[in-house]
Amino acid sequence: MQVGVIGSGSCYDDVCEFAFRLGQLLAERGCVVINGGLGGVMEAVSRGVSSRGGVAIGIVPGKDRRDANPYCKYVIATNMGHARNMIIVHSSDVLVAVGGGYGTVSEMAIALKEGKRVVAYKPAVKLEGLIVVKTPEEAVSKALEGLE
Amino acid sequence: MQVGVIGSGSCYDDVCEFAFRLGQLLAERGCVVINGGLGGVMEAVSRGVSSRGGVAIGIVPGKDRRDANPYCKYVIATNMGHARNMIIVHSSDVLVAVGGGYGTVSEMAIALKEGKRVVAYKPAVKLEGLIVVKTPEEAVSKALEGLE
Amino acid sequence: MQVGVIGSGSCYDDVCEFAFRLGQLLAERGCVVINGGLGGVMEAVSRGVSSRGGVAIGIVPGKDRRDANPYCKYVIATNMGHARNMIIVHSSDVLVAVGGGYGTVSEMAIALKEGKRVVAYKPAVKLEGLIVVKTPEEAVSKALEGLE
Amino acid sequence: MQVGVIGSGSCYDDVCEFAFRLGQLLAERGCVVINGGLGGVMEAVSRGVSSRGGVAIGIVPGKDRRDANPYCKYVIATNMGHARNMIIVHSSDVLVAVGGGYGTVSEMAIALKEGKRVVAYKPAVKLEGLIVVKTPEEAVSKALEGLE
Repeated sequence: MQVGVIGSGSCYDDVCEFAFRLGQLLAERGCVVINGGLGGVMEAVSRGVSSRGGVAIGIVPGKDRRDANPYCKYVIATNMGHARNMIIVHSSDVLVAVGGGYGTVSEMAIALKEGKRVVAYKPAVKLEGLIVVKTPEEAVSKALEGLE
Repeated sequence: MQVGVIGSGSCYDDVCEFAFRLGQLLAERGCVVINGGLGGVMEAVSRGVSSRGGVAIGIVPGKDRRDANPYCKYVIATNMGHARNMIIVHSSDVLVAVGGGYGTVSEMAIALKEGKRVVAYKPAVKLEGLIVVKTPEEAVSKALEGLE
Repeated sequence: MQVGVIGSGSCYDDVCEFAFRLGQLLAERGCVVINGGLGGVMEAVSRGVSSRGGVAIGIVPGKDRRDANPYCKYVIATNMGHARNMIIVHSSDVLVAVGGGYGTVSEMAIALKEGKRVVAYKPAVKLEGLIVVKTPEEAVSKALEGLE
Repeated sequence: MQVGVIGSGSCYDDVCEFAFRLGQLLAERGCVVINGGLGGVMEAVSRGVSSRGGVAIGIVPGKDRRDANPYCKYVIATNMGHARNMIIVHSSDVLVAVGGGYGTVSEMAIALKEGKRVVAYKPAVKLEGLIVVKTPEEAVSKALEGLE
Protein backbone atom coordinates (compact mmCIF):
# COMPACT_ATOMS: atom_id res chain seq x y z
CA MET A 1 0.00 0.00 0.00
CA GLN A 2 1.40 3.41 -1.01
CA VAL A 3 -0.34 6.29 0.78
CA GLY A 4 0.17 9.83 -0.47
CA VAL A 5 0.34 12.51 2.20
CA ILE A 6 0.03 16.05 0.89
CA GLY A 7 0.23 19.44 2.54
CA SER A 8 1.98 22.76 2.72
CA GLY A 9 5.70 23.37 2.84
CA SER A 10 5.23 25.49 5.93
CA CYS A 11 3.44 24.70 9.18
CA TYR A 12 0.77 26.41 11.21
CA ASP A 13 -1.41 25.52 14.22
CA ASP A 14 -1.37 21.84 14.96
CA VAL A 15 -1.08 20.77 11.36
CA CYS A 16 2.49 19.50 11.61
CA GLU A 17 1.70 17.60 14.81
CA PHE A 18 -1.14 15.94 12.94
CA ALA A 19 1.21 15.06 10.06
CA PHE A 20 3.87 13.64 12.39
CA ARG A 21 1.39 11.40 14.19
CA LEU A 22 -0.17 10.38 10.87
CA GLY A 23 3.25 9.26 9.66
CA GLN A 24 3.74 7.15 12.76
CA LEU A 25 0.36 5.46 12.38
CA LEU A 26 0.84 4.76 8.66
CA ALA A 27 4.28 3.26 9.29
CA GLU A 28 2.84 1.07 12.03
CA ARG A 29 0.26 -0.20 9.56
CA GLY A 30 3.01 -1.08 7.08
CA CYS A 31 2.15 1.64 4.58
CA VAL A 32 4.77 3.31 2.43
CA VAL A 33 4.28 7.09 2.49
CA ILE A 34 4.63 9.06 -0.75
CA ASN A 35 5.04 12.80 -0.34
CA GLY A 36 6.51 15.93 -1.88
CA GLY A 37 9.80 15.61 -0.02
CA LEU A 38 10.22 19.21 1.12
CA GLY A 39 9.53 20.98 4.47
CA GLY A 40 6.43 21.64 6.58
CA VAL A 41 3.85 18.86 6.40
CA MET A 42 6.08 16.86 4.06
CA GLU A 43 8.93 16.86 6.55
CA ALA A 44 6.68 16.23 9.55
CA VAL A 45 5.01 13.17 8.05
CA SER A 46 8.37 11.79 6.87
CA ARG A 47 9.78 12.27 10.34
CA GLY A 48 6.83 10.41 11.82
CA VAL A 49 7.28 7.55 9.38
CA SER A 50 10.99 7.43 10.03
CA SER A 51 10.50 7.42 13.81
CA ARG A 52 8.67 4.12 13.46
CA GLY A 53 11.17 2.58 11.02
CA GLY A 54 8.88 3.02 8.03
CA VAL A 55 9.59 4.15 4.48
CA ALA A 56 8.83 7.68 3.20
CA ILE A 57 9.54 8.43 -0.45
CA GLY A 58 9.93 12.11 -1.34
CA ILE A 59 9.12 13.25 -4.86
CA VAL A 60 10.74 16.66 -5.18
CA PRO A 61 9.93 19.36 -7.76
CA GLY A 62 13.54 20.25 -8.57
CA LYS A 63 16.34 18.23 -10.06
CA ASP A 64 18.50 17.96 -6.97
CA ARG A 65 17.76 15.13 -4.55
CA ARG A 66 19.43 17.13 -1.81
CA ASP A 67 16.38 19.42 -1.78
CA ALA A 68 14.64 16.69 0.19
CA ASN A 69 14.22 16.67 3.94
CA PRO A 70 16.46 14.13 5.72
CA TYR A 71 13.57 11.86 6.75
CA CYS A 72 12.81 10.62 3.24
CA LYS A 73 14.43 7.23 2.81
CA TYR A 74 14.31 7.46 -0.98
CA VAL A 75 14.08 10.57 -3.13
CA ILE A 76 12.79 10.92 -6.66
CA ALA A 77 13.88 14.15 -8.39
CA THR A 78 11.53 15.20 -11.17
CA ASN A 79 12.68 18.66 -12.33
CA MET A 80 9.05 19.30 -13.24
CA GLY A 81 7.83 21.85 -10.72
CA HIS A 82 4.14 21.57 -9.89
CA ALA A 83 3.72 18.72 -12.36
CA ARG A 84 5.34 16.53 -9.74
CA ASN A 85 2.06 16.86 -7.84
CA MET A 86 0.44 14.65 -10.47
CA ILE A 87 3.13 12.00 -9.97
CA ILE A 88 2.37 11.93 -6.24
CA VAL A 89 -1.30 11.33 -7.08
CA HIS A 90 -0.64 8.57 -9.60
CA SER A 91 1.81 6.86 -7.25
CA SER A 92 -0.64 6.68 -4.35
CA ASP A 93 -3.45 4.19 -3.71
CA VAL A 94 -5.16 6.76 -1.51
CA LEU A 95 -4.32 10.29 -0.35
CA VAL A 96 -4.44 12.14 2.94
CA ALA A 97 -4.36 15.94 2.77
CA VAL A 98 -3.18 17.75 5.90
CA GLY A 99 -4.09 21.43 5.84
CA GLY A 100 -2.40 22.93 2.81
CA GLY A 101 -2.77 25.71 0.30
CA TYR A 102 -3.13 25.98 -3.45
CA GLY A 103 -0.68 23.16 -4.23
CA THR A 104 -2.58 20.78 -2.00
CA VAL A 105 -5.84 21.83 -3.65
CA SER A 106 -4.37 20.93 -7.05
CA GLU A 107 -3.43 17.48 -5.77
CA MET A 108 -6.80 16.82 -4.11
CA ALA A 109 -8.60 17.87 -7.29
CA ILE A 110 -6.61 15.62 -9.59
CA ALA A 111 -6.84 12.69 -7.17
CA LEU A 112 -10.64 13.04 -7.03
CA LYS A 113 -10.75 13.35 -10.82
CA GLU A 114 -8.79 10.09 -11.01
CA GLY A 115 -11.38 8.45 -8.77
CA LYS A 116 -9.03 8.06 -5.81
CA ARG A 117 -10.11 8.29 -2.20
CA VAL A 118 -9.03 11.58 -0.59
CA VAL A 119 -9.14 12.08 3.16
CA ALA A 120 -8.54 15.63 4.44
CA TYR A 121 -7.79 17.39 7.71
CA LYS A 122 -8.55 21.13 7.75
CA PRO A 123 -8.80 21.40 3.96
CA ALA A 124 -8.52 24.87 2.41
CA VAL A 125 -11.62 24.17 0.31
CA LYS A 126 -14.49 21.73 0.41
CA LEU A 127 -14.28 19.74 -2.81
CA GLU A 128 -17.09 17.31 -3.61
CA GLY A 129 -16.06 13.81 -2.59
CA LEU A 130 -13.53 14.84 0.05
CA ILE A 131 -13.69 12.83 3.31
CA VAL A 132 -13.03 15.29 6.11
CA VAL A 133 -11.54 13.93 9.36
CA LYS A 134 -10.56 15.29 12.77
CA THR A 135 -7.78 13.04 14.09
CA PRO A 136 -4.81 11.13 12.64
CA GLU A 137 -6.44 7.89 13.82
CA GLU A 138 -9.61 8.69 11.91
CA ALA A 139 -7.56 9.67 8.86
CA VAL A 140 -5.81 6.30 8.78
CA SER A 141 -9.00 4.41 9.38
CA LYS A 142 -10.89 6.23 6.62
CA ALA A 143 -7.95 6.09 4.21
CA LEU A 144 -7.39 2.37 4.49
CA GLU A 145 -11.08 1.41 4.60
CA GLY A 146 -11.80 -1.07 1.86
CA LEU A 147 -8.24 -1.02 0.58
CA GLU A 148 -6.59 -3.71 2.68
CA MET B 1 -0.75 38.58 -24.71
CA GLN B 2 -1.49 34.87 -24.18
CA VAL B 3 -4.72 34.27 -22.26
CA GLY B 4 -5.42 30.82 -20.87
CA VAL B 5 -9.05 29.72 -20.97
CA ILE B 6 -9.80 26.66 -18.87
CA GLY B 7 -12.94 24.61 -18.34
CA SER B 8 -14.56 21.23 -18.59
CA GLY B 9 -14.47 18.87 -21.55
CA SER B 10 -18.24 18.68 -21.48
CA CYS B 11 -20.84 21.45 -21.48
CA TYR B 12 -23.81 22.33 -19.31
CA ASP B 13 -26.16 25.28 -18.94
CA ASP B 14 -24.89 28.35 -20.67
CA VAL B 15 -21.24 27.65 -19.99
CA CYS B 16 -20.33 26.87 -23.59
CA GLU B 17 -22.14 29.96 -24.85
CA PHE B 18 -20.09 31.99 -22.40
CA ALA B 19 -16.90 30.34 -23.64
CA PHE B 20 -17.77 30.92 -27.30
CA ARG B 21 -18.46 34.62 -26.73
CA LEU B 22 -15.34 34.94 -24.58
CA GLY B 23 -13.28 33.55 -27.45
CA GLN B 24 -14.73 36.10 -29.83
CA LEU B 25 -14.00 38.99 -27.49
CA LEU B 26 -10.44 37.85 -26.77
CA ALA B 27 -9.72 37.47 -30.49
CA GLU B 28 -11.10 40.95 -31.13
CA ARG B 29 -8.71 42.29 -28.53
CA GLY B 30 -5.79 40.58 -30.28
CA CYS B 31 -5.19 38.00 -27.56
CA VAL B 32 -3.88 34.53 -28.35
CA VAL B 33 -5.95 31.92 -26.49
CA ILE B 34 -4.19 28.99 -24.83
CA ASN B 35 -6.43 26.07 -23.87
CA GLY B 36 -6.54 22.32 -23.35
CA GLY B 37 -7.50 21.60 -26.95
CA LEU B 38 -10.27 19.06 -26.34
CA GLY B 39 -14.11 19.35 -26.31
CA GLY B 40 -16.65 21.28 -24.22
CA VAL B 41 -15.41 24.65 -23.04
CA MET B 42 -12.09 24.13 -24.83
CA GLU B 43 -13.80 23.60 -28.16
CA ALA B 44 -16.32 26.41 -27.62
CA VAL B 45 -13.71 29.04 -26.84
CA SER B 46 -11.53 27.89 -29.75
CA ARG B 47 -14.54 28.12 -32.06
CA GLY B 48 -15.22 31.65 -30.85
CA VAL B 49 -11.62 32.67 -31.41
CA SER B 50 -11.60 31.07 -34.83
CA SER B 51 -14.86 32.81 -35.83
CA ARG B 52 -13.08 36.14 -35.41
CA GLY B 53 -9.90 35.08 -37.22
CA GLY B 54 -7.92 34.77 -34.00
CA VAL B 55 -5.42 32.18 -32.85
CA ALA B 56 -6.25 29.39 -30.38
CA ILE B 57 -3.46 27.04 -29.34
CA GLY B 58 -4.56 23.69 -27.93
CA ILE B 59 -2.28 21.88 -25.48
CA VAL B 60 -3.56 18.31 -25.42
CA PRO B 61 -2.88 15.68 -22.73
CA GLY B 62 -2.17 12.82 -25.14
CA LYS B 63 0.52 12.33 -27.73
CA ASP B 64 -1.66 12.60 -30.81
CA ARG B 65 -2.34 16.09 -32.17
CA ARG B 66 -5.47 14.74 -33.83
CA ASP B 67 -7.08 14.58 -30.37
CA ALA B 68 -7.58 18.33 -30.69
CA ASN B 69 -10.79 20.01 -31.74
CA PRO B 70 -10.66 21.47 -35.27
CA TYR B 71 -10.77 25.10 -34.09
CA CYS B 72 -7.27 25.10 -32.62
CA LYS B 73 -4.94 26.68 -35.14
CA TYR B 74 -1.87 25.10 -33.54
CA VAL B 75 -1.69 22.02 -31.35
CA ILE B 76 0.94 21.06 -28.79
CA ALA B 77 0.88 17.37 -27.84
CA THR B 78 2.36 16.71 -24.42
CA ASN B 79 1.72 13.03 -23.62
CA MET B 80 1.66 14.08 -19.98
CA GLY B 81 -1.96 13.73 -18.89
CA HIS B 82 -3.02 16.17 -16.20
CA ALA B 83 0.49 17.61 -16.02
CA ARG B 84 -0.36 19.46 -19.21
CA ASN B 85 -2.59 21.63 -17.02
CA MET B 86 0.56 23.13 -15.52
CA ILE B 87 1.86 23.97 -19.00
CA ILE B 88 -1.35 25.85 -19.77
CA VAL B 89 -0.83 27.89 -16.59
CA HIS B 90 2.83 28.69 -17.28
CA SER B 91 2.05 29.64 -20.88
CA SER B 92 -0.64 32.16 -19.96
CA ASP B 93 -0.27 35.75 -18.78
CA VAL B 94 -3.69 35.54 -17.16
CA LEU B 95 -6.38 32.83 -16.94
CA VAL B 96 -10.13 32.76 -17.35
CA ALA B 97 -11.94 29.73 -15.88
CA VAL B 98 -15.36 28.96 -17.34
CA GLY B 99 -17.34 26.59 -15.15
CA GLY B 100 -15.32 23.43 -14.87
CA GLY B 101 -14.71 20.51 -12.57
CA TYR B 102 -11.72 19.04 -10.75
CA GLY B 103 -9.29 19.62 -13.63
CA THR B 104 -10.18 23.30 -13.76
CA VAL B 105 -9.77 23.54 -9.99
CA SER B 106 -6.23 22.16 -10.31
CA GLU B 107 -5.40 24.80 -12.91
CA MET B 108 -6.93 27.70 -10.94
CA ALA B 109 -5.02 26.60 -7.82
CA ILE B 110 -1.64 26.40 -9.53
CA ALA B 111 -2.21 29.68 -11.36
CA LEU B 112 -3.01 31.44 -8.07
CA LYS B 113 0.01 29.80 -6.45
CA GLU B 114 2.13 31.20 -9.28
CA GLY B 115 0.73 34.65 -8.57
CA LYS B 116 -1.25 34.89 -11.80
CA ARG B 117 -4.58 36.67 -12.14
CA VAL B 118 -7.48 34.21 -12.39
CA VAL B 119 -10.93 35.33 -13.49
CA ALA B 120 -13.76 32.80 -13.10
CA TYR B 121 -17.34 32.33 -14.28
CA LYS B 122 -19.41 29.87 -12.21
CA PRO B 123 -16.38 28.34 -10.48
CA ALA B 124 -16.82 24.94 -8.81
CA VAL B 125 -15.12 26.27 -5.68
CA LYS B 126 -14.31 29.67 -4.23
CA LEU B 127 -10.54 29.85 -3.98
CA GLU B 128 -9.00 32.84 -2.25
CA GLY B 129 -7.91 35.38 -4.85
CA LEU B 130 -10.32 34.30 -7.57
CA ILE B 131 -12.05 37.16 -9.40
CA VAL B 132 -15.62 36.02 -10.06
CA VAL B 133 -17.44 37.54 -13.05
CA LYS B 134 -20.89 37.30 -14.61
CA THR B 135 -20.46 38.09 -18.32
CA PRO B 136 -17.85 37.45 -21.03
CA GLU B 137 -17.40 41.21 -21.34
CA GLU B 138 -16.63 41.52 -17.64
CA ALA B 139 -14.27 38.54 -17.87
CA VAL B 140 -12.23 40.16 -20.62
CA SER B 141 -12.20 43.50 -18.87
CA LYS B 142 -11.05 42.02 -15.54
CA ALA B 143 -8.56 39.69 -17.21
CA LEU B 144 -6.78 42.35 -19.21
CA GLU B 145 -6.88 45.02 -16.51
CA GLY B 146 -3.38 46.24 -15.84
CA LEU B 147 -1.84 43.86 -18.35
CA GLU B 148 -2.01 45.89 -21.52
CA MET C 1 2.10 20.64 -41.02
CA GLN C 2 4.16 21.20 -37.85
CA VAL C 3 7.89 20.63 -38.39
CA GLY C 4 10.15 20.31 -35.36
CA VAL C 5 13.60 21.84 -35.74
CA ILE C 6 16.06 20.79 -33.05
CA GLY C 7 19.64 21.75 -32.32
CA SER C 8 22.05 23.24 -29.86
CA GLY C 9 21.60 26.44 -27.88
CA SER C 10 24.98 27.65 -29.16
CA CYS C 11 26.29 27.89 -32.70
CA TYR C 12 29.41 26.67 -34.47
CA ASP C 13 30.62 26.44 -38.08
CA ASP C 14 27.85 26.98 -40.56
CA VAL C 15 25.19 25.33 -38.45
CA CYS C 16 23.28 28.52 -37.67
CA GLU C 17 23.35 29.61 -41.31
CA PHE C 18 21.85 26.25 -42.19
CA ALA C 19 19.16 26.71 -39.53
CA PHE C 20 18.32 30.24 -40.69
CA ARG C 21 17.94 29.15 -44.32
CA LEU C 22 15.96 26.09 -43.25
CA GLY C 23 13.53 28.34 -41.41
CA GLN C 24 13.04 30.47 -44.50
CA LEU C 25 12.35 27.46 -46.70
CA LEU C 26 9.93 25.88 -44.23
CA ALA C 27 8.01 29.15 -43.89
CA GLU C 28 7.83 29.46 -47.67
CA ARG C 29 6.31 25.99 -47.79
CA GLY C 30 3.68 27.00 -45.22
CA CYS C 31 5.03 24.86 -42.41
CA VAL C 32 4.75 25.90 -38.77
CA VAL C 33 8.09 25.43 -37.02
CA ILE C 34 8.17 23.95 -33.51
CA ASN C 35 11.42 24.44 -31.62
CA GLY C 36 12.95 24.78 -28.17
CA GLY C 37 12.64 28.57 -28.13
CA LEU C 38 16.10 29.46 -26.82
CA GLY C 39 19.32 30.61 -28.57
CA GLY C 40 21.69 29.11 -31.14
CA VAL C 41 19.96 26.88 -33.69
CA MET C 42 16.59 27.57 -32.07
CA GLU C 43 16.97 31.30 -32.51
CA ALA C 44 18.43 31.02 -36.02
CA VAL C 45 15.61 28.88 -37.36
CA SER C 46 12.99 31.11 -35.70
CA ARG C 47 14.63 34.16 -37.26
CA GLY C 48 14.54 32.51 -40.66
CA VAL C 49 10.86 31.65 -40.26
CA SER C 50 10.08 35.15 -39.07
CA SER C 51 11.94 36.75 -41.99
CA ARG C 52 9.49 35.08 -44.35
CA GLY C 53 6.39 35.91 -42.29
CA GLY C 54 5.98 32.37 -41.00
CA VAL C 55 5.12 31.06 -37.55
CA ALA C 56 7.69 29.64 -35.11
CA ILE C 57 6.45 28.27 -31.79
CA GLY C 58 9.04 28.05 -29.03
CA ILE C 59 8.59 25.45 -26.29
CA VAL C 60 10.88 26.58 -23.49
CA PRO C 61 12.18 24.43 -20.60
CA GLY C 62 11.59 27.03 -17.89
CA LYS C 63 8.43 28.65 -16.59
CA ASP C 64 9.05 32.14 -17.96
CA ARG C 65 7.99 32.87 -21.50
CA ARG C 66 10.50 35.70 -21.60
CA ASP C 67 13.26 33.08 -21.81
CA ALA C 68 12.34 32.72 -25.46
CA ASN C 69 14.17 34.39 -28.32
CA PRO C 70 12.22 37.29 -29.91
CA TYR C 71 11.58 35.46 -33.19
CA CYS C 72 9.11 32.96 -31.73
CA LYS C 73 5.62 34.19 -32.50
CA TYR C 74 4.10 32.05 -29.73
CA VAL C 75 5.79 30.63 -26.65
CA ILE C 76 4.81 27.63 -24.57
CA ALA C 77 6.43 27.55 -21.12
CA THR C 78 6.67 24.07 -19.67
CA ASN C 79 8.73 24.34 -16.47
CA MET C 80 9.83 20.76 -17.17
CA GLY C 81 13.49 21.01 -18.14
CA HIS C 82 14.64 18.36 -20.58
CA ALA C 83 11.21 16.73 -20.56
CA ARG C 84 10.11 19.58 -22.82
CA ASN C 85 12.16 17.82 -25.52
CA MET C 86 9.52 15.09 -25.58
CA ILE C 87 6.81 17.69 -26.11
CA ILE C 88 8.67 19.04 -29.15
CA VAL C 89 8.77 15.51 -30.57
CA HIS C 90 5.08 14.78 -29.95
CA SER C 91 4.06 18.15 -31.39
CA SER C 92 5.92 17.64 -34.67
CA ASP C 93 4.88 15.65 -37.76
CA VAL C 94 8.53 15.32 -38.74
CA LEU C 95 11.81 16.58 -37.27
CA VAL C 96 14.93 18.21 -38.67
CA ALA C 97 18.04 18.08 -36.48
CA VAL C 98 20.69 20.72 -37.18
CA GLY C 99 24.02 19.83 -35.59
CA GLY C 100 23.43 19.60 -31.88
CA GLY C 101 24.71 17.89 -28.78
CA TYR C 102 23.29 15.57 -26.15
CA GLY C 103 19.91 17.29 -25.97
CA THR C 104 19.44 16.93 -29.70
CA VAL C 105 20.45 13.27 -29.47
CA SER C 106 17.71 12.71 -26.88
CA GLU C 107 15.14 14.26 -29.19
CA MET C 108 16.25 12.33 -32.27
CA ALA C 109 16.17 9.08 -30.30
CA ILE C 110 12.65 9.57 -28.95
CA ALA C 111 11.37 10.75 -32.34
CA LEU C 112 12.75 7.60 -34.01
CA LYS C 113 11.28 5.48 -31.21
CA GLU C 114 7.91 7.10 -31.92
CA GLY C 115 8.26 6.15 -35.58
CA LYS C 116 8.67 9.73 -36.79
CA ARG C 117 10.84 10.75 -39.72
CA VAL C 118 14.06 12.45 -38.60
CA VAL C 119 16.26 14.35 -41.03
CA ALA C 120 19.69 15.44 -39.77
CA TYR C 121 22.47 17.80 -40.80
CA LYS C 122 25.85 17.09 -39.16
CA PRO C 123 24.38 14.84 -36.44
CA ALA C 124 26.52 14.19 -33.36
CA VAL C 125 25.81 10.45 -33.68
CA LYS C 126 24.56 8.14 -36.38
CA LEU C 127 21.35 6.64 -35.09
CA GLU C 128 19.69 3.90 -37.12
CA GLY C 129 16.92 5.38 -39.23
CA LEU C 130 18.32 8.92 -39.38
CA ILE C 131 18.18 10.56 -42.83
CA VAL C 132 21.39 12.57 -43.19
CA VAL C 133 21.33 15.59 -45.53
CA LYS C 134 23.80 18.21 -46.76
CA THR C 135 21.75 21.30 -47.61
CA PRO C 136 18.67 23.08 -46.24
CA GLU C 137 16.92 22.42 -49.56
CA GLU C 138 17.58 18.69 -49.26
CA ALA C 139 16.44 18.78 -45.62
CA VAL C 140 13.07 20.29 -46.54
CA SER C 141 12.63 17.96 -49.48
CA LYS C 142 13.39 14.84 -47.41
CA ALA C 143 11.36 16.05 -44.44
CA LEU C 144 8.19 16.74 -46.38
CA GLU C 145 8.44 13.71 -48.67
CA GLY C 146 5.26 11.70 -48.41
CA LEU C 147 3.76 14.02 -45.80
CA GLU C 148 2.01 16.58 -47.98
CA MET D 1 23.47 5.90 -3.27
CA GLN D 2 20.79 5.65 -5.97
CA VAL D 3 22.04 3.97 -9.15
CA GLY D 4 19.96 4.19 -12.31
CA VAL D 5 19.96 1.10 -14.49
CA ILE D 6 18.57 1.67 -17.97
CA GLY D 7 17.93 -0.64 -20.89
CA SER D 8 15.40 -2.08 -23.27
CA GLY D 9 12.01 -3.53 -22.39
CA SER D 10 12.91 -6.69 -24.30
CA CYS D 11 15.96 -8.93 -24.00
CA TYR D 12 18.51 -10.29 -26.46
CA ASP D 13 21.82 -12.14 -26.24
CA ASP D 14 23.27 -12.06 -22.76
CA VAL D 15 21.98 -8.61 -21.93
CA CYS D 16 19.43 -9.74 -19.38
CA GLU D 17 21.93 -12.02 -17.67
CA PHE D 18 24.22 -9.02 -17.37
CA ALA D 19 21.38 -6.95 -15.91
CA PHE D 20 20.41 -9.65 -13.40
CA ARG D 21 23.98 -10.03 -12.16
CA LEU D 22 24.40 -6.24 -12.06
CA GLY D 23 21.35 -6.02 -9.82
CA GLN D 24 22.81 -8.58 -7.44
CA LEU D 25 26.12 -6.76 -7.20
CA LEU D 26 24.53 -3.36 -6.68
CA ALA D 27 22.29 -4.73 -3.92
CA GLU D 28 25.30 -6.31 -2.24
CA ARG D 29 26.99 -2.93 -2.25
CA GLY D 30 23.95 -1.38 -0.59
CA CYS D 31 22.86 0.66 -3.61
CA VAL D 32 19.22 1.42 -4.32
CA VAL D 33 18.43 0.72 -7.98
CA ILE D 34 16.25 3.17 -9.91
CA ASN D 35 14.82 1.84 -13.18
CA GLY D 36 11.94 2.12 -15.62
CA GLY D 37 9.91 -0.60 -13.90
CA LEU D 38 8.81 -2.57 -16.98
CA GLY D 39 10.11 -5.79 -18.61
CA GLY D 40 13.39 -6.86 -20.23
CA VAL D 41 16.45 -5.24 -18.68
CA MET D 42 14.28 -3.39 -16.18
CA GLU D 43 12.77 -6.62 -14.89
CA ALA D 44 16.08 -8.51 -14.93
CA VAL D 45 17.93 -5.94 -12.87
CA SER D 46 15.03 -5.64 -10.41
CA ARG D 47 14.98 -9.42 -10.04
CA GLY D 48 18.70 -9.42 -9.33
CA VAL D 49 18.32 -6.70 -6.72
CA SER D 50 15.38 -8.49 -5.14
CA SER D 51 17.28 -11.82 -5.02
CA ARG D 52 19.80 -10.17 -2.71
CA GLY D 53 17.20 -8.43 -0.54
CA GLY D 54 17.91 -5.03 -2.05
CA VAL D 55 15.56 -2.24 -3.09
CA ALA D 56 14.58 -1.55 -6.72
CA ILE D 57 12.32 1.42 -7.44
CA GLY D 58 10.44 1.32 -10.74
CA ILE D 59 9.43 4.60 -12.37
CA VAL D 60 6.79 3.62 -14.92
CA PRO D 61 5.62 5.71 -17.91
CA GLY D 62 1.90 5.07 -17.41
CA LYS D 63 -0.44 5.97 -14.60
CA ASP D 64 -1.03 2.47 -13.30
CA ARG D 65 1.46 1.08 -10.77
CA ARG D 66 0.41 -2.41 -11.78
CA ASP D 67 2.32 -1.93 -15.04
CA ALA D 68 5.46 -2.58 -13.05
CA ASN D 69 7.26 -5.92 -12.89
CA PRO D 70 6.82 -7.72 -9.54
CA TYR D 71 10.46 -7.26 -8.49
CA CYS D 72 10.19 -3.51 -7.91
CA LYS D 73 9.73 -2.93 -4.20
CA TYR D 74 8.31 0.55 -4.76
CA VAL D 75 6.68 1.94 -7.87
CA ILE D 76 6.32 5.55 -8.97
CA ALA D 77 3.67 6.09 -11.66
CA THR D 78 4.29 9.20 -13.73
CA ASN D 79 1.72 9.16 -16.57
CA MET D 80 4.31 11.03 -18.61
CA GLY D 81 5.51 8.57 -21.25
CA HIS D 82 9.10 9.06 -22.33
CA ALA D 83 9.44 12.10 -20.06
CA ARG D 84 9.75 9.60 -17.20
CA ASN D 85 13.21 8.86 -18.62
CA MET D 86 14.32 12.29 -17.43
CA ILE D 87 13.06 11.51 -13.91
CA ILE D 88 15.17 8.35 -13.85
CA VAL D 89 18.21 10.43 -14.77
CA HIS D 90 17.57 13.14 -12.16
CA SER D 91 16.91 10.53 -9.46
CA SER D 92 20.21 8.69 -10.01
CA ASP D 93 23.70 9.56 -8.75
CA VAL D 94 25.18 7.55 -11.60
CA LEU D 95 23.73 5.46 -14.43
CA VAL D 96 24.49 2.06 -15.93
CA ALA D 97 23.12 1.38 -19.42
CA VAL D 98 22.71 -2.26 -20.37
CA GLY D 99 22.27 -2.69 -24.13
CA GLY D 100 19.17 -0.78 -25.08
CA GLY D 101 17.60 1.05 -27.99
CA TYR D 102 16.41 4.57 -28.65
CA GLY D 103 14.89 5.08 -25.19
CA THR D 104 18.18 4.17 -23.55
CA VAL D 105 20.01 6.52 -25.90
CA SER D 106 17.75 9.37 -24.76
CA GLU D 107 18.54 8.62 -21.14
CA MET D 108 22.31 8.32 -21.68
CA ALA D 109 22.31 11.62 -23.58
CA ILE D 110 20.44 13.58 -20.93
CA ALA D 111 22.53 12.04 -18.13
CA LEU D 112 25.75 13.08 -19.90
CA LYS D 113 24.30 16.54 -20.52
CA GLU D 114 23.60 16.79 -16.78
CA GLY D 115 27.23 15.90 -16.10
CA LYS D 116 26.46 12.49 -14.61
CA ARG D 117 28.70 9.46 -14.95
CA VAL D 118 27.30 6.93 -17.43
CA VAL D 119 28.67 3.40 -17.66
CA ALA D 120 27.49 1.27 -20.60
CA TYR D 121 27.50 -2.36 -21.68
CA LYS D 122 26.96 -2.94 -25.40
CA PRO D 123 25.62 0.58 -26.03
CA ALA D 124 23.65 1.18 -29.24
CA VAL D 125 25.76 4.26 -29.96
CA LYS D 126 29.08 5.63 -28.78
CA LEU D 127 28.34 8.95 -27.14
CA GLU D 128 31.24 11.12 -26.03
CA GLY D 129 31.89 10.59 -22.35
CA LEU D 130 30.36 7.11 -22.11
CA ILE D 131 32.41 4.60 -20.08
CA VAL D 132 32.09 1.26 -21.87
CA VAL D 133 32.51 -1.92 -19.80
CA LYS D 134 32.51 -5.67 -20.41
CA THR D 135 31.35 -7.30 -17.18
CA PRO D 136 28.86 -6.52 -14.40
CA GLU D 137 31.76 -6.39 -11.96
CA GLU D 138 33.53 -3.78 -14.05
CA ALA D 139 30.26 -1.84 -14.40
CA VAL D 140 29.82 -1.62 -10.63
CA SER D 141 33.44 -0.75 -10.07
CA LYS D 142 33.41 2.03 -12.68
CA ALA D 143 30.00 3.31 -11.60
CA LEU D 144 30.85 3.68 -7.95
CA GLU D 145 34.39 4.99 -8.47
CA GLY D 146 34.76 8.26 -6.66
CA LEU D 147 31.17 8.28 -5.45
CA GLU D 148 31.46 6.39 -2.19
